[in-house]
This record gives sequence, structure tokens and C-alpha cells, in this order.
Amino acid sequence: MSELSHNVDKKLVLASGRAHPELAEAVADALGTELLPMSAYDFANGEIYVRSGESVRGKDVFIIQAHPAPLNNWLMEQLIMVDSMKRASARRITVVAPFYPYARQDKKGRGREPISARLVADLFKAAGADRIMSVDLHTSQIQGFFDGPVDHLFAIPLLADYIRGRVGSDEITVVSPDTGRVRVAEQWAERLGGAPLAFVHKSRDLTVPNQAVSKTVVGQIEGRTCVLIDDMIDTGGTIAGAVKVLKDAGAKDVIIAATHAVFSDPAAQRLSECGAREVVVTDTLPIPEAKRFETLTVLSIAPLLARAIKEVFEDGSVTSLFDGNS
Amino acid sequence: MSELSHNVDKKLVLASGRAHPELAEAVADALGTELLPMSAYDFANGEIYVRSGESVRGKDVFIIQAHPAPLNNWLMEQLIMVDSMKRASARRITVVAPFYPYARQDKKGRGREPISARLVADLFKAAGADRIMSVDLHTSQIQGFFDGPVDHLFAIPLLADYIRGRVGSDEITVVSPDTGRVRVAEQWAERLGGAPLAFVHKSRDLTVPNQAVSKTVVGQIEGRTCVLIDDMIDTGGTIAGAVKVLKDAGAKDVIIAATHAVFSDPAAQRLSECGAREVVVTDTLPIPEAKRFETLTVLSIAPLLARAIKEVFEDGSVTSLFDGNS
Amino acid sequence: MSELSHNVDKKLVLASGRAHPELAEAVADALGTELLPMSAYDFANGEIYVRSGESVRGKDVFIIQAHPAPLNNWLMEQLIMVDSMKRASARRITVVAPFYPYARQDKKGRGREPISARLVADLFKAAGADRIMSVDLHTSQIQGFFDGPVDHLFAIPLLADYIRGRVGSDEITVVSPDTGRVRVAEQWAERLGGAPLAFVHKSRDLTVPNQAVSKTVVGQIEGRTCVLIDDMIDTGGTIAGAVKVLKDAGAKDVIIAATHAVFSDPAAQRLSECGAREVVVTDTLPIPEAKRFETLTVLSIAPLLARAIKEVFEDGSVTSLFDGNS
Amino acid sequence: MSELSHNVDKKLVLASGRAHPELAEAVADALGTELLPMSAYDFANGEIYVRSGESVRGKDVFIIQAHPAPLNNWLMEQLIMVDSMKRASARRITVVAPFYPYARQDKKGRGREPISARLVADLFKAAGADRIMSVDLHTSQIQGFFDGPVDHLFAIPLLADYIRGRVGSDEITVVSPDTGRVRVAEQWAERLGGAPLAFVHKSRDLTVPNQAVSKTVVGQIEGRTCVLIDDMIDTGGTIAGAVKVLKDAGAKDVIIAATHAVFSDPAAQRLSECGAREVVVTDTLPIPEAKRFETLTVLSIAPLLARAIKEVFEDGSVTSLFDGNS
Amino acid sequence: MSELSHNVDKKLVLASGRAHPELAEAVADALGTELLPMSAYDFANGEIYVRSGESVRGKDVFIIQAHPAPLNNWLMEQLIMVDSMKRASARRITVVAPFYPYARQDKKGRGREPISARLVADLFKAAGADRIMSVDLHTSQIQGFFDGPVDHLFAIPLLADYIRGRVGSDEITVVSPDTGRVRVAEQWAERLGGAPLAFVHKSRDLTVPNQAVSKTVVGQIEGRTCVLIDDMIDTGGTIAGAVKVLKDAGAKDVIIAATHAVFSDPAAQRLSECGAREVVVTDTLPIPEAKRFETLTVLSIAPLLARAIKEVFEDGSVTSLFDGNS
Amino acid sequence: MSELSHNVDKKLVLASGRAHPELAEAVADALGTELLPMSAYDFANGEIYVRSGESVRGKDVFIIQAHPAPLNNWLMEQLIMVDSMKRASARRITVVAPFYPYARQDKKGRGREPISARLVADLFKAAGADRIMSVDLHTSQIQGFFDGPVDHLFAIPLLADYIRGRVGSDEITVVSPDTGRVRVAEQWAERLGGAPLAFVHKSRDLTVPNQAVSKTVVGQIEGRTCVLIDDMIDTGGTIAGAVKVLKDAGAKDVIIAATHAVFSDPAAQRLSECGAREVVVTDTLPIPEAKRFETLTVLSIAPLLARAIKEVFEDGSVTSLFDGNS
Repeated sequence: MSELSHNVDKKLVLASGRAHPELAEAVADALGTELLPMSAYDFANGEIYVRSGESVRGKDVFIIQAHPAPLNNWLMEQLIMVDSMKRASARRITVVAPFYPYARQDKKGRGREPISARLVADLFKAAGADRIMSVDLHTSQIQGFFDGPVDHLFAIPLLADYIRGRVGSDEITVVSPDTGRVRVAEQWAERLGGAPLAFVHKSRDLTVPNQAVSKTVVGQIEGRTCVLIDDMIDTGGTIAGAVKVLKDAGAKDVIIAATHAVFSDPAAQRLSECGAREVVVTDTLPIPEAKRFETLTVLSIAPLLARAIKEVFEDGSVTSLFDGNS
Repeated sequence: MSELSHNVDKKLVLASGRAHPELAEAVADALGTELLPMSAYDFANGEIYVRSGESVRGKDVFIIQAHPAPLNNWLMEQLIMVDSMKRASARRITVVAPFYPYARQDKKGRGREPISARLVADLFKAAGADRIMSVDLHTSQIQGFFDGPVDHLFAIPLLADYIRGRVGSDEITVVSPDTGRVRVAEQWAERLGGAPLAFVHKSRDLTVPNQAVSKTVVGQIEGRTCVLIDDMIDTGGTIAGAVKVLKDAGAKDVIIAATHAVFSDPAAQRLSECGAREVVVTDTLPIPEAKRFETLTVLSIAPLLARAIKEVFEDGSVTSLFDGNS
Repeated sequence: MSELSHNVDKKLVLASGRAHPELAEAVADALGTELLPMSAYDFANGEIYVRSGESVRGKDVFIIQAHPAPLNNWLMEQLIMVDSMKRASARRITVVAPFYPYARQDKKGRGREPISARLVADLFKAAGADRIMSVDLHTSQIQGFFDGPVDHLFAIPLLADYIRGRVGSDEITVVSPDTGRVRVAEQWAERLGGAPLAFVHKSRDLTVPNQAVSKTVVGQIEGRTCVLIDDMIDTGGTIAGAVKVLKDAGAKDVIIAATHAVFSDPAAQRLSECGAREVVVTDTLPIPEAKRFETLTVLSIAPLLARAIKEVFEDGSVTSLFDGNS
Repeated sequence: MSELSHNVDKKLVLASGRAHPELAEAVADALGTELLPMSAYDFANGEIYVRSGESVRGKDVFIIQAHPAPLNNWLMEQLIMVDSMKRASARRITVVAPFYPYARQDKKGRGREPISARLVADLFKAAGADRIMSVDLHTSQIQGFFDGPVDHLFAIPLLADYIRGRVGSDEITVVSPDTGRVRVAEQWAERLGGAPLAFVHKSRDLTVPNQAVSKTVVGQIEGRTCVLIDDMIDTGGTIAGAVKVLKDAGAKDVIIAATHAVFSDPAAQRLSECGAREVVVTDTLPIPEAKRFETLTVLSIAPLLARAIKEVFEDGSVTSLFDGNS
Repeated sequence: MSELSHNVDKKLVLASGRAHPELAEAVADALGTELLPMSAYDFANGEIYVRSGESVRGKDVFIIQAHPAPLNNWLMEQLIMVDSMKRASARRITVVAPFYPYARQDKKGRGREPISARLVADLFKAAGADRIMSVDLHTSQIQGFFDGPVDHLFAIPLLADYIRGRVGSDEITVVSPDTGRVRVAEQWAERLGGAPLAFVHKSRDLTVPNQAVSKTVVGQIEGRTCVLIDDMIDTGGTIAGAVKVLKDAGAKDVIIAATHAVFSDPAAQRLSECGAREVVVTDTLPIPEAKRFETLTVLSIAPLLARAIKEVFEDGSVTSLFDGNS
Repeated sequence: MSELSHNVDKKLVLASGRAHPELAEAVADALGTELLPMSAYDFANGEIYVRSGESVRGKDVFIIQAHPAPLNNWLMEQLIMVDSMKRASARRITVVAPFYPYARQDKKGRGREPISARLVADLFKAAGADRIMSVDLHTSQIQGFFDGPVDHLFAIPLLADYIRGRVGSDEITVVSPDTGRVRVAEQWAERLGGAPLAFVHKSRDLTVPNQAVSKTVVGQIEGRTCVLIDDMIDTGGTIAGAVKVLKDAGAKDVIIAATHAVFSDPAAQRLSECGAREVVVTDTLPIPEAKRFETLTVLSIAPLLARAIKEVFEDGSVTSLFDGNS
């Protein structure tokens, strides 16, 4: 007999970069496991060194990394982790990037621009990633940038269910802060029981010649509780400006809801002072204590990530987590 | 001396598939050249045969094909043309697909869906295409699906300039037929001198319990000339429905403008009867006589394609054709 | 402990395109399973939509599609199915194409021709196929066009055994309808117990100056039962012509045997009227009732496909199904 | 101004491996150039070292190598040459392999066989070859094994024209030594003015029960001058056996014609003693003095290679060298 | 006539990242051109945006970037620049990375380590780089990490010639600071006229039991001027320690020479206080005023880079710049 | 139910080329299995044919081949074996090359040289290898040449432990035969308990003008037992020369230790006559009886290979075999 047999048993391993260890630990907890022990440190000139403390040979490895500033550092760390796992004979490598880096640069808005979101997909591929898992991509088309399976998770149910517990559906108008998010606002509206829509955009008053461009609301929001939605809040300028426009136009109340709390300065200040009743986000990115404020609510994305990872590992269905929409 | 020299002179060749020869000839005319002589026919079981009648060795080949129904046939013909040119030692192959096939399937709207627009990019790449040229992609992110340069041309200036010559800017409101095109409507509005925006969407009347979902307009359109825009018109159902909603809501007039006249049945009937004052499209797709109607205006896309091909061939700038936006 | 375990159990899934559902169902029956539920339909402009009704995550997926006219449509459908399964995290994807599309265009017969059979292999690869299974490739070299395993199944044993049950081996001469199939005729001859060979080809009569080219038989066929073989019958012109030549040259009887019944018009008429005693084919392609005729015998390929799929799935040996020749 | 200009002038460089320097020099002469100076030697354990003596940066490099025994050595030398030219920034690399290595292993004749002819194409690609040029591939499908242009040259015109000068067309029957070359024999027959065809194959005498298999001729050859053709002659067993069968069957005379003179022992002896009037081959492979015999005629392939290289370099047409058939 | 002609004239474009603009400008000056105008800035969360101010279509683009801390940022900027140039139809893209990032992680020193230097090569390739140019790679094998041409430039001649002008060859011993650089020290020694060699390494004194490991010199350095060489100086710990060991062992004088002045803290302090007579480096990395000290000499690498870029652009020979050793 | 289940059980198969069957059998023995039955022979012109006698479908195949002269032959045989296993549907293919071919050509020492060691990695990849296992690579960077996992095994522990059993650690000085192996010598020194280091190199005597270059020892070796180490011994010239230099410089005794016994002529003679007390090697390469001599000791590498293969197959840890250094 010219062959040897060996029993097969799949093993899941969860490894984390250094950007947001709390999230990784919460996911590990929800999965009922522990994070892979890793050595990771920076050389004096910024070069990153990583090494797993245990064998990952033949394992189904999930490499979770958040991407706050300094984003390029955390991206490179994740790429190096992928390379090391590939060379250490991992069976399969899934990049878990709850906030997809460079998602906003997903097209050439002008000639000679890069498409950095595609580049990021290519870099993950080049390093050796077999699949990607992410939450609320800036545009769904980014799934198509990666040559392989992308598990696209949605935080809208999590956020919308929270808001439904706080405000009556009949009072709500869902508002997009610009023209590019109206389709997403519609998805929110459906989740909130068919709420009406509105959006903010720049226009000139046609009745006054030579008037400067100003922001106006398209849609009926007077006397209503506006749920102002976005996928991410970076410096908060657009969203805080939109709150003001809504209030000026007669909105009763404004609740801001977004998945990714990038919160670059002065986002915390702007959001806490803009007049919104509440700001609801998830923890796909770390939010340091200094950037938290009274009206901020942070919902944990870890249970969703853990459930998705379990489905992927056990060859279940991620789609089933979202009623067929993933 | 162990080398031979030879003078280099770049040669452009324009080859056309069989889907829309009029467009290809118009482009050739505008370039001041003739189409490459090609043999192309179908075997009895539908297999396609193509062969160039002249050498394309070392040439800069542009393969233009339109993609009307039966779309898969024309796509396959173009792929086979690319394969034959690659094997015949063309120096560079540019796929010119004015209407990008499967552009609407650009993301997984639900789990287990294909991303056929990415697949099409991969098929062109596998066949040997070096670059792609297309007009008004359904979403700009499709540029990122191809691993190489994509020249994305815009018909909005062509269409908008025509409309500007017909209607005073001050009368116009730009209307998106659904929530997914509001950002494009905004680009139209800018081109039309800062016109106001509106969009049509499905909603329930919040004042009437248990009422069915109906289409309503968000934005002010009463008494105004609505320019109802879209990238393509397929069966015309959505767009004709939107005209009715706008009329019912008090619009003075409606002009429909779209780049790609797919015009699947019963589009021609619907459009001619929907009450729109005019329907303006381009000829990125062939429009047979039987599908033309009185209020239809067809603008030629050939001059734009010819200018872009010339810029590509001569290492000029396609971006410059659009004020830096390509 | 930093890892989770999960029991592994391979799952086979059989999905079918819309070209020939009867064959797919017969294969599923023979395997003792059911076809994967699929949504599949055409958009008005011919774009195809497909989506699996069940999760295929981690499954060993076989995608069976026949390729009758309109062949490009069915090919594109299969490519889109592969793309959707890849993105839905199938573990392995085998394209089952009983009749390999574009198999006749397997070389550059003249300069600047495509090699469409290689292109098809590249398209399957680009879409995400891991392996291909096919029956009686036009030339065996096509196996080498795909960068991965190709399971090449043979229908000759099936067809030859049937004929052996109908005609005594000693009466038979195996005839190739042209010079390109003589090697295949030899394989038939071996299977039929060492029968003599002949072939038909175009030649001029050397004794008559300036005479036109005519078809003649090379080999002894007088008074014998000719088994006229081919891999496929398209319009039936060559094969019906060969029957006439054989009859004229004194053949006692002619039986036509071919694997792939392409049967483009007017094949059915030609075959039923050509004077052959029987036409034996398999159902690798659907044969509509209107194209069936009295002397036609259709053998089912489904049991062979099912056995091969089972061997592939269970890591058995496909070679063993053919005495080491696959 | 942020760019610098430089005049472009293409340069052709012809480099040769060590297997058959006479052929390479003859090609260089015909082109009117000299071979690139190369250092090439073997380390004691058989490792090969190569290095160009001149810069090849930006050059159009043709790397010619013959593949006699020890074939793997010469193949590896050519691969290393390709690697060195790629890393030395050659603009384009064409592998010139007049006798394509491993051409006979072009399919899986039995399960678990390699397809070494495809492997060779993949190895050339992996090393960095952009294109391949070869003469009389064992089967034309091998063109499809390479992912790029293959210039397939034909020696049949050269050989056939020579024979036409020696024998009257009306006396000739073209004979294939087995069933696999009948199609090629037909191409010869066309070139020789429509000569009749025959082939040799193994069969049992149907009139004698239990008789062993023997070789017989199918086709009329009595009293005729048989041109026995093949793409290559290796040990000469099949071809010498065929001469005997033809003579026994009444052939007046036999001329052997083949492109590739592999001439493994005891080919020279067999051919010189087999009774053929003349053996005509080309010098795609070196034929040492010891393997030459009185009835051997060697035609030079160098002028054809030189003309093809010139067409490729100058973006002319290789197809035109063969009346559209390359 | 079915083709158009256009005169070809190659254009060189030099684009620079933001890490070390002085170097890029010095290279542009030496080439007699100007840097490509670029927009480049950081988003609040660290995402980088770049865009060329001029068309690069058809140009031969060189993208120069230094890689000081924060190295991952500059690496990512260069990758994004490559992506943008590829999509903007640059004809060829050469990454100029004078100090190759992650060069020290060029092998798995221990199991499960990454090979980050290979990863970097793969990332450049994935982004679209055609070729790489670098100076004094940490190990020459890194050339083999990139699948394409690597122009490896040497600063040793520059540094050694400077030192030769300062010290008599006969006084010099070349010293490697550890066992890994002895081969490089030998190259220095050859350049300095055959100077003797020594190296520093950790060992235990064999005559004293249980003694701790200490650093010792292997080779004769008493009374001699030691030229202590390395490819890079990071924090300066090893090199400053080596100076002390050499002085303690009786060296007359020590001159430190290294190509890459990484100079992470506290390198400047250590080097200025270590007792070396002079520290000679190049400007492959920016050296801010605060890190310069009295005994530091910085030689400009710009002329070498400019000459190499010119040779690459004009299809000359980079090898010729180094007597055949590049 | 639309899926079938099948129990999974991994199967290991060990296949061997023909270069060194004894080693392969020893590995199989140590694993407790038998070699896969293979047909392998050469055609008259040197083309190699291989075919597995059993199905390898779904198996974890290890293909072991040694690479003595004629090295290109054995390399090509291994590549063809990989191709055949890939096409026969092996689940995973590991190339086991104890002595990595062309390892010495791992960089461009001069311009226009190939990097043949990278080429070999690319060829293995192109043929279908998933992973590589090798022993004592000439430089560790070669691991980075392969795009996938490389299991790098070390023979130093095996060799060093043997020497420790023969000589007291305190007597030993580890000597590198040239400047390129000093780092490896240091690793030996650590393994031998911190022995001192020395190396041999070419230098000129600075006190004598115009004197020719001669070999000298750097480091203290007088009266000590020198362990002269190298990764391979080819013709033995360098190493035998080094023995003489050491003896002349007062070494008490010299033991030569190397992993790979290439032993090209006249290595055996040189080594047996050079004055070394013992020559210790492994059997990564076959050593024919004629090349064995009295002072030669051959240690078997088979147990190490077997243990590593077992770890790879069972998803254990190869690193653990070497205290974390693999």
C-alpha cells in the first residue's frame, strides 16, 4: 500500500493586528476561543515585525485588523501577517477588515486618480488572502474588486433596531447627508417600516440672481424626527452641517446613525455640539475615551463578526444572517 | 555588430464586430480611416468565426462592438476577436464597448449572486485585452473591475448641451427616476447651471393606515420642466412610470435623457405614449427603424469615441476631453 | 487554547444550466441526489441572471451545461454560474461540458484565426473553474488547453458496445468521413475487435486530365457493413455525402455513429434520407422531438457522467472507468 | 517641461544556445547580422551558466535553440537564457524552437499521463518568453498551449517543392506511416498537385481466424512512387517498417520526407538500409556526420526562419510566407 | 487603407513621492528635466490621495520615493502612485526605491516569520510596477524577489573613492561589524586596493569557564585605520559598539561608511560620540538638520540615480556604470 | 435534499524520481509506507515519460527528487511528474528537493546574469507545485523566491551533533572557506557551544609591493581542530585549498563538514588527499561507491525528511523540529 491516511478535522484560528485589540478579543469571546498569540513590534524606522507564537499549519486563519489612523501602518501590518501565515502553510486566510481601507477612493472621480480601494484588494490578494470579510462597504461594488469571495456584513439591522427601540417609526424621516447616499437611505427607510426620505444638497436659489450656492433639503422633514445616516463619519463636517440645515428647515429632532466612527479631529467636538439628540455608531474602529461624548452610543459589532466567522468556518450561510442579502 | 535596426511608426487599426456596423463606420470616418476588413460568420450551431483580412502584427488595435440583444453573442464575438488579434501579434488591444455588458450586475445585491460586470472585465482580460473604453458606466466603480486602464467617456455633456439649446436653464428640475441615480442627477444639475433636484421613490402615505406602497416625488417639480435622466432605458417601465408621477404631481413638461437606448420591447411604445415631450438618447446601441418614434432624438456618440481613440493612440489626454473628469 | 475544531464532511452539489435540464436530471437521478435549486432568467436585452437557492459554501460543486444553439448564451450562463459559485465560497468548481464549445476551432488553420477552444478554457479559468469534465473532445489536445485537471470521458465504448450487439464484428469496416478522423476510426476498430479501416477524401482522378475533384473511398468497403464514425454531426452534409460515396462504392450497409448530435438544420432530413440503416448518437446535446427520425437511436450519456462525477467527488479513479485511457 | 524625449529605433538581436550553432549562424547570415556574443558553460554538476556579452536593454531578442539529445539540457539552457534576457530588460523575447520539445506528449493518451508539450509552453511563459516560433508542430493544437502568439512555420512547401523537382506528380502517392498523420498526408497531396493518399496500419486478416495483427496498406500504391511523410523521424522503426510494407505491396519506389531528423540510434542504419530511394529532411536538428548516409538529403531551414524573424521584427506578415496558412 | 500612422518618440517622466523631495529634485536637475507636478495629501484618517497634474499616457514613468519613518506611509504612497499611473496608461513604470523597504526581513530566520522583502516586491508588482531600481540592497538575492528587471546600483564606488581621497590605502583594514557582512567587506577591500579584512563577533573566552559572551575582533587591526562598513545604520548600536571594540583592540582610527542613513534615535548621538573619526553616508534617505553632526559627511546619490535612469530610458547599459557588475 | 456527503480522510503519497531511489526508499521506510509505483523512462532523444501506476486523485502528494548530474534531466523529470500529478487531480503537491538546483545562481553577480534559482522556483510553480521542501539552501533568501510555503530543513544539527561526539568543543575553531559563509560558520559555532571563528580569504601582503594575491586565514586557528564548513562540496577545489592554508597556518587538525556532497570530479581525490582528518556529509545527493573514500562519513538525511513530511501532512509543526528556526 503506497499511501498513508490521516484524520481531518478543521481548525479555526483567530489572529489580530494591534490596531483594535478590544474588538478582536470581543470576537474571540463570542466565538468561545482565544486569540492566536502573536509577537508584533515596530523597528525604529517603522518597519513592522510579526510572528505567530503557535503553528498555523493547515488552519483556517482569520486575521482581524481595524484601520484607524495611522491607517497605512495597520494595513501594512495586516499584509505582513497574511504573508507570514501563507508561508507558514495556513490552509486558508480570511482578511477581516471591518472598516475597509481606502473605500472612498473606489473610482476615478477625475482623470489620473488612483482606484485605491481596488489596489487594496489587489494587495491583499498579492499577500496571499483567500477571502475578505468587511462591514458596510462604502459602495457595494467594492465586493467586485477582490478576485474571490467577499463576505459583506451589514450593520444597518443592528443600528436600525436600536433606533426603532428609541423612536416611533411614524415620526421618522430618513435623511441622506448628500446625493450619493440616497439609495442607502432608502434601505434604512425600508428597515424602519417604510419611513419617508429626504436628502441634503448644494443648490442655488433660483429666485435670486447671482446668489451663492447653499445647502437645502429636498424632501419633507418639518416637524419630524430625522435619522441622518451615513456609512462613516470622518471629521464630521458634512454631517454636522446637515444637522444644522435640517434644524433650520424645521426638523423636530435629529439622530445621527453611522457604521464607522472614523472620528478624525474635530469630529467629537462637532458632533457633540451640532444639536443632534443622539449619535449612534458601532465599534468597527476604536473610539478612544477622549473622543467619546455624552450623546454618543456605541453598539458592538463583535457578535455579528463572530457569527459570520462561525458560518464561514463551518460552511454555513452568511446570507442567512441577513435574510438573503449578503 | 550584433543587432539590426528598424524604424518605428505606430499604426492604429479599428476593427468592428457585427452588432452595430453603422457606429463603427461613423467612428472610422471621424478618424479618417477605414475599418479593418474582417471575415465573420456563424456556424450552424451558433459558434462564431472571425478572421482579419489584413495583418495586425505590431498594430495598436481598437475592437469596437455594441452590445444589444442577443448580447451574449456579441460579447462572445468580441472576445474571440480579441483572442485572434492577440495570437496575430497585435501590439496592444483596446476593447471599445460603448455600452458595457452586464453593467447592472455590478454587486451582490443578495447573497450568492454573481458580479457579472466584474466577470466581463475578467473575460476581456483573459482573452487578451490590454485596455477598455466605455461610455457612461452604470456605476463608476466598474472602472475598478478591470486590471488595467479604462477610458471612461461621458455622454452627459453631449446630452446636456443639446437640452440646454432647447429649454431655458431656469425652468429645469433634474429628476432621478429612483434613489440610485440621485448623484448622477446632481452631475446633470451642475452641467445645466445648478438646476434643482428631485427623485421618485416608492413610499407609503403615512397619514393613511395600511395603505399600499405608491410612487411619490421627493423635491419640488410643480410647474417646472423636468429633465428625467438615466444611464440606460431598457423596457422603459420605470422611466414611463416616473413621467406619469411627475405629470400627476404638476410638472409642466418632461424631457427624458439617457445615454444607452437598450429599448427592449415595449420600450418604444411606452416612451412614445408616456407623455414626455422628447426622449433624447445616443447611438451607443443600434436603434432599428421600428423602434424609432416621433419624439425620439438620437445624438451620435461617434465623434466622442473617435476623439478618445485618437487621444489614446497618440498618447494625448482623454481627461482633457472632459475638463479633467475622465 | 487558541483554536476551534469542526468536523469535516465533503458535500457534493450538482447545479444545472437551462440548456438541457433532462440530461442534468438524469445525472442527478443516477447519483441519487437532486439538482441544486437555481433561479435563472434572461433580462429583456439578453443579459442572464442566476442565483443559487441554497448555500454552496464549502461544497464540491459540479455545474453541468449542454451547449446547443444558441451556444454563446449557454456558455455565458455557465460562466456566470461559475462566477456566482466562486463568490459564494464553493470549495471546488467543476465545469461539466459534455459537448465542449468551440472544439472545432482548436488551432490556427490559417493565419490570424482565433483558437477559440483555448479561449473557452481560459474563460472557464477566469470565471473560477477548478476543473473541467467533457465527453469525446474534438481533439484530445484540448485537454492541454486548460490549466488544471480535465476529465476526458469516452462515449466510444458505449456506442461501440451498442453496435456490437447489432452487427457481427466480422462484417464491419470502420470508416472515417475525412482524413482528420482516421486515428479515431482506428480506436473504434480496436474496440470492435480489430475491424478494417477506410476513409473518404477528396481527390482528382489521375487518369483524366483537368477533371474536377470528387470524393473517393480509400480502403476496402465493398460488401461490408460500414460503421461511419465522427465525434459530432452538425448539419450532416459531410456524413450524408460519405454515406452516398460508400453506397456507390459497394458498401452493403452503413451505420452512422457519433457522440454529439448537434443536428443543425437540415441534419435531421439529410440523415433520415441518406440511406444509412441506423444513426446512433448520445444525448450530450438535447435533441428536440422535431429532429428525431425513425432510424435514430439515442443512447444516454447520463450514467457515464454520473459515474465519473462520483469518482471525482470521492477521490476515486476516472481512469478506471476506461481501462486506463482517461 | 516635465518630460524628456528620446528617439525610438527598434533593434533586433539574435542569440543562440549551444545545441546547434551552425543553424543559428546560418539564420544570422540570412538576416545579415551576427549572433549576440554569449558566455555559456556547464558547471561540473551540470548546472548551466549563460550571460550576454552585450547589453540587450530594450532590444527585440530572438533566442534560437535546437533540441536534440540531451534535450532537457538544451531546453533548460534556453529557459535560463530567457530568464537572463528578461532580467536584463529585453523589450520582447521570442523563443525560436524549430523542433518543439516534447511535442509528442501533447495529450493524455492514458490517465495520469503528463501533457509535457503544454508544460513546455508554461515553462517558456514562466521564464519570460513573450512569443514562440516553431516549425511543423507535431500537432497544430500545440499553438494553443502557449498563452501568446505562436508563429507556426511550415516546412512542407520546402520539402514538397524539392520532391516535385525529382518526381513527376502523376507518379506519386502520398503515404502516412500510421493513422494519425493522414490529415497531414492530405496537405502534402494538395501541395503535390492532388496526389492520391494511402496509409499503413495494423490490422488482422479477417479471412484467417486467430491470425496475429500485421501491418497493411490502406489505399492504392501498386506501381507508384510513394512519398512516405512524417513530421519527425526518431529511431526510424515505424518509417522503415512502412517502407517494407509498401515495397511488399508493390510500390515502385519510396521517398521518405520528414521535417525533423531526430535520428536516434539506429535511425541512420535503418533508413540507409530500408530500401527507400531517398530520405529528405531539414536541419531543424543537427545531424552529425556519423549519422549521414548516401541517400540522405538535408534541406536548410535557415532561410525560412530568417524570413519569418524579419517579418516578426518589422511587423510584417508571417502568414504571407505561406499563402495565408500560418 | 485601414490603418493610421503616428510618429513614436519616447518620453521620460520623473514623479516623486513626498518623503524626500530634495533627492528627487536633485535627480531631476541632473537629468535636465523637472518633476511631474503632483497633487498629494493625506485625509484626516491617514488615507493618502495622489493625482498627476499632467497626462502620463504612453510615458516612461519613474516614480522615486525614499523610505524613512513613517516607512509604511511612504511605501503606501508609492504603491498608490503606481496604481494611478497604471490606470492613467503609462507605458512603463519603474519604481525607484533607493533604500528598499523591509530589506532586512529577506528570509525566515525563524519559523512563521514573514519574508517582508518579498512581500514588498509582490506589492509593487500587484500595483503595476514593471521594474525596480534600488541602491545597495541588504542582500543581492532581493533582486530575485521581483518578477522583472531590477536595476541594482552600488554606492560602494562612490563611498570608497571618497575614502581613498582621505586615507592612504596601505593604512586601511576593512571591518565588518558582524559575520553577515564579511563578503561585502571583501568587496570594499578590493575597491580599496586589496586591504586586509576583519570582523567583529560575539564569542565567549574559551580560557575562562562560564564567562559571558563578549564582542571580539577576528583579524589584525592593531595600529590600522579601520573602515567599518555596513549597508545601513539604523539606531547605530551595533556600529558604535564595534567602534569601541576596535579602539579597545588597538585600532589607530575608525571611519564608518554606510549607504543608507536610517538614523533612528539615538543614532546621531551614538555616532557623534562613539569615537569614529568620520561617518560617511549617502542621501538615499533624508537626514534632517537635527540629526547631522560634525563628523558626518553626506555624499549625494542623485548623480548615480540620474545616470542609471538615463541608461534605462535610452536603452543603454546600467551594467556599464559599474564595470559589468550591476 | 440537493447534496451528497462523503467522509474525508487525508491520504499521503510519496513519489520518487529516478535520480536517487535509495534516499526515497529510506524516507518511505521511515514514514512506514511504500513509494508510489511509477513508470518512468527516456525516449531515444532524451524526452522523459512518467506515469503513476495508481490514482492520486485527492491525495497529498510529495514528489522527491535528488539533483545530481545530469541535473537538468532530473529537474525536468520532477517538473513533468508535477504536471502529471496536477492533471491527475492531486489535492496538493509538495516538491521535495533536498539539494535545491541552481542554488548558487541566486543573484546577479554581474549585469545580464540570470537568477536561475528564482527561475527554478518559477518553473516548479508553473508546473503546479504548491509547496517546496529543501535542505540547507545555499542562501536562506531562496525561500523568498517561491510564491508559497517553503519548508527549509537544516542539516547543521545532524552534522554538528556528530562532530560533537568526535571532538571536544573546547578544541574547535569553526572556519569558513571564504567570506560568504562566515554567518553560517557562526551558526555552527553556536551549535558547537560557542566555538571561535575564522575564515580564509584572498589578500595581498601589504608589506611587499606588487606581490601576488594569496590565501590567508583571518582568525586564530593555531593548534586548534578546525571544523571547515560549507553547504556543498562540488569539485572540492576551494575546500581542499582551505585545508592546506589552515594546516600551513598551524591548525592541529581539520574536519570538513558539508550538507550536500555534489562531488564532481576530482572532488573525491582532492578530499581524500587534502590532509583533512574526516569529511562528513549527508546523502541529499547519491554518492556512488567510486566516489567514496576512507575518511568519508555519510549521515542519512532520510529520518529528517520523513519527520518533516509527516509534520506537513498532519498539519503539525516543522518549526518544532528545529527549536523554532525553520
